[in-house]
Amino acid sequence: MFESSRTIDFPDDSARDDLKRLYRDANEIIVRSIAANLPHQAVKNALAEHVFSRGLHLLAIGKAAWSMSRAAYEQLGGRIESGIVITKYGHSNGAIGNFEIFEAGHPIPDQNSVAATERAIELASGLMESDELIFLVSGGGSALFEKPLPGVTLDDMARLSANLLASGADISEFNIVRKRLSAVKAGRFAKLCEPARVFSVVLSDVIGDRLDIIASGPAAPDLSTVNDAWSAIERYKIPVSDALAERLNLETPSETPNVTSVVSGSVRTLCKAAEDVSRSLGYEPFVLCTEMDCEAREAGRLISSAARAIKSGDSAIKPPCAVIFGGETVVRIRGSGRGGRNQELALAASAGIDGLEGVVIFSFGSDGTDGPTDSAGGIVDGEVMSEFRARGLTPHTFLENNDSHTILKKVRRLVNTGPTGTNVNDISVLLIL
Amino acid sequence: MFESSRTIDFPDDSARDDLKRLYRDANEIIVRSIAANLPHQAVKNALAEHVFSRGLHLLAIGKAAWSMSRAAYEQLGGRIESGIVITKYGHSNGAIGNFEIFEAGHPIPDQNSVAATERAIELASGLMESDELIFLVSGGGSALFEKPLPGVTLDDMARLSANLLASGADISEFNIVRKRLSAVKAGRFAKLCEPARVFSVVLSDVIGDRLDIIASGPAAPDLSTVNDAWSAIERYKIPVSDALAERLNLETPSETPNVTSVVSGSVRTLCKAAEDVSRSLGYEPFVLCTEMDCEAREAGRLISSAARAIKSGDSAIKPPCAVIFGGETVVRIRGSGRGGRNQELALAASAGIDGLEGVVIFSFGSDGTDGPTDSAGGIVDGEVMSEFRARGLTPHTFLENNDSHTILKKVRRLVNTGPTGTNVNDISVLLIL
Repeated sequence: MFESSRTIDFPDDSARDDLKRLYRDANEIIVRSIAANLPHQAVKNALAEHVFSRGLHLLAIGKAAWSMSRAAYEQLGGRIESGIVITKYGHSNGAIGNFEIFEAGHPIPDQNSVAATERAIELASGLMESDELIFLVSGGGSALFEKPLPGVTLDDMARLSANLLASGADISEFNIVRKRLSAVKAGRFAKLCEPARVFSVVLSDVIGDRLDIIASGPAAPDLSTVNDAWSAIERYKIPVSDALAERLNLETPSETPNVTSVVSGSVRTLCKAAEDVSRSLGYEPFVLCTEMDCEAREAGRLISSAARAIKSGDSAIKPPCAVIFGGETVVRIRGSGRGGRNQELALAASAGIDGLEGVVIFSFGSDGTDGPTDSAGGIVDGEVMSEFRARGLTPHTFLENNDSHTILKKVRRLVNTGPTGTNVNDISVLLIL
Repeated sequence: MFESSRTIDFPDDSARDDLKRLYRDANEIIVRSIAANLPHQAVKNALAEHVFSRGLHLLAIGKAAWSMSRAAYEQLGGRIESGIVITKYGHSNGAIGNFEIFEAGHPIPDQNSVAATERAIELASGLMESDELIFLVSGGGSALFEKPLPGVTLDDMARLSANLLASGADISEFNIVRKRLSAVKAGRFAKLCEPARVFSVVLSDVIGDRLDIIASGPAAPDLSTVNDAWSAIERYKIPVSDALAERLNLETPSETPNVTSVVSGSVRTLCKAAEDVSRSLGYEPFVLCTEMDCEAREAGRLISSAARAIKSGDSAIKPPCAVIFGGETVVRIRGSGRGGRNQELALAASAGIDGLEGVVIFSFGSDGTDGPTDSAGGIVDGEVMSEFRARGLTPHTFLENNDSHTILKKVRRLVNTGPTGTNVNDISVLLIL
């Protein structure tokens, strides 16, 4: 559970007042925007707005399943007649009422995934028209919630997947094929729950919050068809046995009328929280993107050039302001250093704000990790280039070696939250006084 | 002279009304923001705000020198006692009063550059305290306005420059060394004009509008020192003769108190014009950058994600709005196609606005050319991906081959202004109804 109150190093007492204030405020934005997006809070918010009038049951899948379930239990308690929680090994944290708690394989589904999913199917199949299932979905659900169609094995699915990826299929084509071999994905789980109603609360780790993509959409209408799947298979000339071919010809639901879905946490709510906190601290907030997906370092350069335009008065956006960019950037690996997309974005932004007063740029992952490092991101200001120069550090060299973590650590410009328990992508903030 | 009234193809009569309006408005923004930044207008604006009370003389250097001089002559006419115009071969267009008009080499200075510059030095040297020189500066001035220090030849300069670049010096180190061998650069021309005053009107083609960089700053204080020059020479182990070494030890002026400079045209005034036109058409304008310098395609992706955030209501920026990005992006050459940074930005933005109504993104170079093409840029909307699909065109493939011009031409999404006569970098606009 995220309880950090200090995620960045504050400037020394000798620093200018504008920097002291910006770092204090950046820390507030980081701490409070993560807190507002913890699974626990997200579920409570969603359930509070829904009117339940039926026999309640619960199914939670994903890496945040335990935390989401506990929140539902705290809210609705004994009104939930039965519950099943399926999460990753090591991700549950004790009993919750009478719920059955399963741990299973991630990112590769295993027999525990299948066994737990079979229990969930049993629960779903027993639901009546007067019942309602609370379905809590978070990232990782695709591996944790899996049962192949009759006649298909996990190995069959793995082999077909590997062939597709090896042949150059993209992740979207890969998913279109794979989910059709599952008994619970692509809306099929929603059908199993009929005639009961399903109230789905989703914590999204997918840019664009597409319900058919998050956890492969067990309770979402499938937007793809049998034809789409065969197009991909034929495009990449993937060998398919007659048994698999028969299963691939089964259509998935294009409608799930018994389901109501609420995305209660996502990078959009992360941006909204950062917006609210920024406003409360006296900055006029502008969310510019919630689906930023370009290269991290180029985003850093662009954000630093926005800083210059705003500071010079060229922009209609006037200080004090917070320009907020949500999403998930990408890093092109060129070197062998340590870093992550958020740290790389911050490092790349440093040159463009060299010498500017009253500006910080920070970027962090809401899950508290950024690339293969134990930091969540980085923060830079107009002084950092001077510090690099004084210490003989050339940021360009570190950037070329994807070594943002190493150089930012030297100048104490890392964002360290520890694991937060949530995962709703990243956010980058340009904060100007 | 730019007189185009139609720079883009408008949608067919059968198109949706939002698209028809957006294309009409985009055309207005392109036409009117270029018109407001033609050299002629820029000079008139600057001169109109300055009070001249002395014996007036004129020197104009750069690719827009003739057009800038004509504007000054139209404004002040016979009050200008003498004038010298130094422009690129083919860039003058007839007599202007009694001005002496020279054409010379660009981008490599030649003996005509030197001869013309000697005439300018003669003029400067004859100025008295009661005189004022109108000094009109535009891009290209660095090559066109050149006279080596006594004892240095153009060949010496060329050889030293070539050695520096071949050894890995960047453009800034290169300039620091080269300009010190010139009799007129790095503030030295301002000294030659003393005790007269100099009123300098600058049309900037340099991101950030640094007066010491535009045309190598003949009338701007030099921010570099003898030590900086020697650092670069020693870093790259460049051989330097005793004669050159003696010249490199001469300090350049760090102050030019007799000069007043006005940047009357630049990407900032281009953005300001686009802002004004957008507002007059009913869009709330937001200039987000005036110095955007990241990769073109990544900027395109980011701008398209801003479009999605604004359309979905996630942003405090509400339609109808115009988000404006000025600067000069870069293209990494990967393929052998035809394109330019503006066309590549537009093409890269197309996927991110696929299916969105009421959105266009366009990007163009104010000089009317973009890369080695005869187009100024490109424009895309939410329909263009459908058109690509219908015609079997895969934009990703064209992008990978840097072939943005070819694919945008097929779907009539080019911006064609023809040569405009100005050069104040590029602008990208996200226009949303």
